[in-house]
Amino acid sequence: MAQGQRIVLASRPVGEPKPSDFRAETYDVPTPGQGEVLLRTIWLSLDPYMRGRMSDAASYAQPVPVGGVMEGGTVSEVIASNNPGFAKGDIVLSRAGWQTHALSDGKGLAKIDPKLAPISTAVGVLGMPGMTAYTGLLEIGKPKTGETVVVAAASGAVGSAVGQIARIKGARALGIAGGKDKCDYVKRELGFDECLDHRDPNLAARLKDACPKGIDVYFENVGGAVFEAVFPLLNAFARIPVCGLIAHYNDTEAHQPKWAASMMRTVLTKRLTIRGFIVSDFAAMHADFLRDMSGWVRDGRVKYKEFITEGVESAPQALIGLLKGANFGKQLVRVGPEKA
Amino acid sequence: MAQGQRIVLASRPVGEPKPSDFRAETYDVPTPGQGEVLLRTIWLSLDPYMRGRMSDAASYAQPVPVGGVMEGGTVSEVIASNNPGFAKGDIVLSRAGWQTHALSDGKGLAKIDPKLAPISTAVGVLGMPGMTAYTGLLEIGKPKTGETVVVAAASGAVGSAVGQIARIKGARALGIAGGKDKCDYVKRELGFDECLDHRDPNLAARLKDACPKGIDVYFENVGGAVFEAVFPLLNAFARIPVCGLIAHYNDTEAHQPKWAASMMRTVLTKRLTIRGFIVSDFAAMHADFLRDMSGWVRDGRVKYKEFITEGVESAPQALIGLLKGANFGKQLVRVGPEKA
Repeated sequence: MAQGQRIVLASRPVGEPKPSDFRAETYDVPTPGQGEVLLRTIWLSLDPYMRGRMSDAASYAQPVPVGGVMEGGTVSEVIASNNPGFAKGDIVLSRAGWQTHALSDGKGLAKIDPKLAPISTAVGVLGMPGMTAYTGLLEIGKPKTGETVVVAAASGAVGSAVGQIARIKGARALGIAGGKDKCDYVKRELGFDECLDHRDPNLAARLKDACPKGIDVYFENVGGAVFEAVFPLLNAFARIPVCGLIAHYNDTEAHQPKWAASMMRTVLTKRLTIRGFIVSDFAAMHADFLRDMSGWVRDGRVKYKEFITEGVESAPQALIGLLKGANFGKQLVRVGPEKA
Repeated sequence: MAQGQRIVLASRPVGEPKPSDFRAETYDVPTPGQGEVLLRTIWLSLDPYMRGRMSDAASYAQPVPVGGVMEGGTVSEVIASNNPGFAKGDIVLSRAGWQTHALSDGKGLAKIDPKLAPISTAVGVLGMPGMTAYTGLLEIGKPKTGETVVVAAASGAVGSAVGQIARIKGARALGIAGGKDKCDYVKRELGFDECLDHRDPNLAARLKDACPKGIDVYFENVGGAVFEAVFPLLNAFARIPVCGLIAHYNDTEAHQPKWAASMMRTVLTKRLTIRGFIVSDFAAMHADFLRDMSGWVRDGRVKYKEFITEGVESAPQALIGLLKGANFGKQLVRVGPEKA
């Protein structure tokens, strides 16, 4: 019987995940039963939310059980089907997780048309990260022409889309990223108006200089020093969509934001809007997102970059790196070849 | 020449305002020039925001200068007019401040029809406090049938309207007020589903018991211990309109909210909306507000209570009391009789 490979959660990490918090296993590739399909994983998407799933702190989703296969979105090929909705050779978006093969009853699978775009974009710019950027920016951030939009992790899957969409909407986009290479890419390739290095000890002063008219939208996906630099620069009526706090995911104790004591007073006097969201809250916008974003990708107004590691066994180290900003672009794991 | 009386800001308070931070003055009642009217103050409204105007900390409005007349909304009578838009005897809503007489060029004055409602309601349930409740609750809080709405200062001008409007919209209204008399009034007269005493040392536990299905809307007008009790009970997708933080207006140092460290994480995982506002942000809703609220007052679905002190010289002590919850209902100063 053919053997598959998978990565399970070995232990709940304390602070930064370690390789020993994961365990590689082999398993018998299963046979699909009545109504089921067998999937072969091509692309596994790695995303910051996965750190949350490794922890048992209360959140919007259940944690992965210890010993369970790590969760994740995948682009997979149907290699055997007992389900009339899917044929051998279909490429589908799935949540097959960190493993080479998985069964599915077909629920929650979405077919991907390989002619429309590279199939990896289904977990990137045309998938969850792109839609997170699109919905949070447009439904909560609502940038207007001439306003200033700030986003961190600006070379990443979400941040890069946020800034480019902000520009399309006529706003000024200021990115924050880690290191000169990423900042150069964000400015030169993605066309942001400016990009600052979050490792700069004078980030707060540089951000102030770079935002002479203040900040109208801060798309929050990191927290930490970036939020603290942004907070005093927020304009009246500024909007803060909150989709992530990656700077804190490895925290072992609660982080006390520098501006915490005055936060509610500032919410009042500046009439701020702070709103948390996850992409599924805006599921009704999926068709609008696909139409707009695929158009923008096609005409070159939205660019994206992929950062690929090879083999499912590379996923633990790649996630550990992602949480530290080691990736440069959308983090993907090539679990298997596009054409088997 | 006739003499008027006024109250000026003598010094910026540190912490709780003291009587010596105010000064009573007499002045010559002025004569209206070309295009001007002379106003006689009948009702002066006292409101928590006035504490902010006494301070020079950055806010959404300029502070009252030391030596300047204290600001405030008034119901006034036109007693002399050189302005074709106003006649002697007209009753108008004005921002004449803490004084018996004031000139106006007519800008910003709004005529009040004494036949429609008691004229004092123009600075109460049918005025700024009522509209603060209406706009913040309906535009930000958006209570749905069966949801739980919590508001503090529930016997006051804003809180009483918030809870009653929440009930009209089919939500459950839970009030918080200071002391048994106020709580009884809020439940029995205003028809809230429940009212808790914020002086109860077990407020957090009592609030939890009283909100078995959690809190969907917290109308924030106080901050402090109430916010800390509310925060862990907020449901996913809860909305927090923020119009005031009266518990902190006399703070001499920034207050560190108990939940500050986890606030942004909770915003994310519970997808909270926290939004500050002041009533003028929703000026476009004024006609809707007047139509709905005057209808509800007329048919008895919204009740209100006034707490009246006599004479402009009573205003300093009344404001000091208001900031401590000494008032029971909308705080008004009768500066002059309705019929002179």
